[in-house]
Amino acid sequence: MLPLALTMGDPAGIGGELTLRAWHALRDTERWFIALDDPDRLAALAAAIGCDVPIRLVTDAADAAGIFRDALPVLPVRLAVPGVPGRPDKANARAVIGSIERATALAMRGAVGGVVTNPINKAALYDAGFAYPGHTEFLAALTGAPGKQIMMLASPQLRVVPVTVHASLRDSLAMLNTDMILAAARTTHAALRRDFGIARPRLAIAGLNPHAGEQGALGDEESTIIAPAMTALRAEGIDVSGPWPPDTMFTAAARARYDVAICMYHDQALIPLKTLDMDHGVNVTLGLPIVRTSPDHGTAYDIAGKGVADPTSLIAAIELAALLTERRSAALGGA
Amino acid sequence: MLPLALTMGDPAGIGGELTLRAWHALRDTERWFIALDDPDRLAALAAAIGCDVPIRLVTDAADAAGIFRDALPVLPVRLAVPGVPGRPDKANARAVIGSIERATALAMRGAVGGVVTNPINKAALYDAGFAYPGHTEFLAALTGAPGKQIMMLASPQLRVVPVTVHASLRDSLAMLNTDMILAAARTTHAALRRDFGIARPRLAIAGLNPHAGEQGALGDEESTIIAPAMTALRAEGIDVSGPWPPDTMFTAAARARYDVAICMYHDQALIPLKTLDMDHGVNVTLGLPIVRTSPDHGTAYDIAGKGVADPTSLIAAIELAALLTERRSAALGGA
Repeated sequence: MLPLALTMGDPAGIGGELTLRAWHALRDTERWFIALDDPDRLAALAAAIGCDVPIRLVTDAADAAGIFRDALPVLPVRLAVPGVPGRPDKANARAVIGSIERATALAMRGAVGGVVTNPINKAALYDAGFAYPGHTEFLAALTGAPGKQIMMLASPQLRVVPVTVHASLRDSLAMLNTDMILAAARTTHAALRRDFGIARPRLAIAGLNPHAGEQGALGDEESTIIAPAMTALRAEGIDVSGPWPPDTMFTAAARARYDVAICMYHDQALIPLKTLDMDHGVNVTLGLPIVRTSPDHGTAYDIAGKGVADPTSLIAAIELAALLTERRSAALGGA
Repeated sequence: MLPLALTMGDPAGIGGELTLRAWHALRDTERWFIALDDPDRLAALAAAIGCDVPIRLVTDAADAAGIFRDALPVLPVRLAVPGVPGRPDKANARAVIGSIERATALAMRGAVGGVVTNPINKAALYDAGFAYPGHTEFLAALTGAPGKQIMMLASPQLRVVPVTVHASLRDSLAMLNTDMILAAARTTHAALRRDFGIARPRLAIAGLNPHAGEQGALGDEESTIIAPAMTALRAEGIDVSGPWPPDTMFTAAARARYDVAICMYHDQALIPLKTLDMDHGVNVTLGLPIVRTSPDHGTAYDIAGKGVADPTSLIAAIELAALLTERRSAALGGA
């Protein structure tokens, strides 16, 4: 079983302490990882929050085999200045970006099974030449798959894929079209088959409007935009249902009837996911040549360095990345 | 303790059987009601679904005192043709409307404590001259309070008030303005104080956009429309917080910090409410001179007459109406 590569994230955020906590939670399991991080800052952080973690420097992923139970393997990515919790510093932008680049390179050459990213703060990276709206687009560029990536949020109760993501609600409505729904549904369908082991994924397509438009009385996007996508997907043999009234499609009874909900906008997907389970949500990027997951929260500057950050979502992200890696390598005839 | 008036709803829907089930559930409690319904159809329905309910005809609310434990008091509203489950009939529109009118009249003259409405199907009523988008607007007109009514959905976990309601998402965005938020928040604040016994209600105001607009990067309605409303509400001494990122404001931890969420559109309010609890949601109309609640579901033609409809939401609506009636009469110096 290959390790995963875990990135540094913003050194002013909670990523470092989550990494330390995750090692404690997972050291006796098969879900092992290498941190692409600054060993000095991790050691200082471990002391500061009273979380004892032996650190072992490695120069390549192959060196890390067999040591995870006893120490956290760290492939060093040095900070320019010490990371101060809660205080992002542009001087460290190159290290933050470098951690992501090296993790991705390890995954592309098969030295690690996949990449798990700690949260970054884009604003702190822009001056260093980071020209992407976020992690996902950066990874797409690094792996040569720009424009095809799809964000899925997965928790034990629910998987959701928002068709429009980081735009205002007004802009999301303006940009939503049949092709975007098709692309999201096709990528999701392929990923659920390949990486999630679901032979015939059931996709529930959300309506856009209240009551899914009530036959046009409350909006017509269900018939003009969503229905044509569903017709095309069915013609491709994909199991789709909908368009469902958004307010009743996330109940337990409704969720039992599908494997993933294709949602029309960010909050239609994220409100039910986070309301049902704030802690175990994992962000999975579909449509990349590599496995990539991340916790479903941000840098949390307000609590960084205090030792109170909850590692549940990062641990869930590591566990899911390991599972997806296993499935993918099994499908390739490996392991 | 005054009884409540329970309307017939669409005789082709599940209202009748819910009424029968609610009587069984509540007959030994103080939460008693009079059905404004056709006694023959209720008797036939009781036989059809095997739910034994003695029916006692009354000619006024005062006649019903003391009999609820032994029989369901029915103030007759006769159907023109027998109600057939699953098959709405325009011939019965006058009876459906008449039931609502008589229940409201009883409440307006203080003969009942409040009105609980079974679900209707507006389409089946339009030919009979029903000219309202729904129950709420009809009740507002009947009670002389047009244009001031606000819909609140309440469950044991969450109360939500959507500022825009039955319009397409696109139209909801176009019509949303500061005055609408102000009106919804003021009416909600007054109702929580008077009818819900909350001395200093805490109102959480939702953002409109993902991440509440991320300081304008993902939309500016938070600063142009929502913030001015919050400033005005604070000046009036109302405890408001926000604008909150919509996806994280409905977690258990977040919900503990407010008494009601003021939401910008239908599904922002209804998705979390129904996802958390599909069965116990109650629709409460605020801003009327009378107490009015209803179950949070529709006519459910697909299961009508089969005896399988779940009365939980109607029972919750009756219990909440009784509670609001008690509080209101106590506030007026009554019993």
